[in-house]
Amino acid sequence: MNAAIGQLIGVGVGPGDPELMTLKAVRTLESADVVAHFAKAGNNSHARKIASAHFRADAEELPLLYPVTTEIHRHDDAYKTAIAAFYDASAARVAERLMAGQTVAVLSEGDPLFYGSYMHLHVRLAHRFPTQVIPGVTGMSGCWSQAGVPISQGDDVLMVLPGTLDETALAERLSQADAAVIMKVGRNLPKIRRALAAAGRLDRALYVERGTMADSTMTPLAERNDDRAPYFAIVLVPGWEQAA
Amino acid sequence: MNAAIGQLIGVGVGPGDPELMTLKAVRTLESADVVAHFAKAGNNSHARKIASAHFRADAEELPLLYPVTTEIHRHDDAYKTAIAAFYDASAARVAERLMAGQTVAVLSEGDPLFYGSYMHLHVRLAHRFPTQVIPGVTGMSGCWSQAGVPISQGDDVLMVLPGTLDETALAERLSQADAAVIMKVGRNLPKIRRALAAAGRLDRALYVERGTMADSTMTPLAERNDDRAPYFAIVLVPGWEQAA
Repeated sequence: MNAAIGQLIGVGVGPGDPELMTLKAVRTLESADVVAHFAKAGNNSHARKIASAHFRADAEELPLLYPVTTEIHRHDDAYKTAIAAFYDASAARVAERLMAGQTVAVLSEGDPLFYGSYMHLHVRLAHRFPTQVIPGVTGMSGCWSQAGVPISQGDDVLMVLPGTLDETALAERLSQADAAVIMKVGRNLPKIRRALAAAGRLDRALYVERGTMADSTMTPLAERNDDRAPYFAIVLVPGWEQAA
Repeated sequence: MNAAIGQLIGVGVGPGDPELMTLKAVRTLESADVVAHFAKAGNNSHARKIASAHFRADAEELPLLYPVTTEIHRHDDAYKTAIAAFYDASAARVAERLMAGQTVAVLSEGDPLFYGSYMHLHVRLAHRFPTQVIPGVTGMSGCWSQAGVPISQGDDVLMVLPGTLDETALAERLSQADAAVIMKVGRNLPKIRRALAAAGRLDRALYVERGTMADSTMTPLAERNDDRAPYFAIVLVPGWEQAA
């Protein structure tokens, strides 16, 4: 066992296509002692699937399994308590390995500090241990690249909006944005559709599922009749109004 | 000469550190017949500097040199005419090579469809030639990762705002955002500072120059007395208000 303290590394693995990992992420994983990844209990980690070809053969894998799912409302007190306890316990498990001198890579789909679970470990550990964050290609970049849609240029204001906002707030923000990305679509899709229509932007909106994956689909949202959508689908509203 | 038509590929090379290129960008450059890159006349292309280690030894380099700079006001008609003619001529030079069956990789710092020059070729050529866009790590992801600052989480609204907006619009948007990234700082810095103060966000703002480069600097904006800033500096306003 090494007496020196180990390093915490948040590793962005990109939007899904393993080829969209960075050289730095690959080299980091090739030498990490421990690879931690978040997943819902009973599910496999997407980030693990993207990156696992690069783990050291003798690396320890540390799955961090969410005790609760998005099915419980996130403003519920029981949810908040359970999730905070889970992050505390996860941070303790990672800290144990850092104290033993091990390098711990924590996988993050997309970019670690942009809506990623890794942040919950970062705020608990980065002041106590040497820490590095390796940025990754975000899911939204993967989606607009796959769609071939210039999202924003020049003086465009781009807004990243969670689909969980209420309908009025969503419509108001959409009417002020040149370009927008709506995340966390799932069961919010009918509301998102109404907010886009109210803001006069429905005709430019593009619905994308599984961007950068082999089976990705994209449709103009106005042409999509189905109101069901996975949580990780996103809606793009491109800002580029003229082919200039 | 190959009779088949060539492929246009927009290649994101990431925020600056060559290690933050994706595997896909590297492999694409290793086989591209032609590598095109934008720069101001008299300057070297940053994107070229990031990626040049991966060019094929016999690849043709096609520098696309801006005839005018940001010193001319962008709403000026003479500027608009000159820049449109430049993009038209650049697209024609790329099209010539595609017609000859060559693969043309167009380099883009950061992500090609996110405020990148590549977009101007994309809108002129993607409907005429087989086209692929390889997303990259954005400059803003590079900056917040280097700073170790969780930028947005949960239901945060993130706004990407050009520093060129007028002061009132900037302050209004900032007061509605949970998290914000202000780009195109340069001579707009004093105005950005006033807008942040008006929105009550100055105390959280972080000024970053040359994120992910070896010589990057970051300072709380409130502590920075200098009003000079390069055009590519950015200001981050993190959304994460509590260490939850």
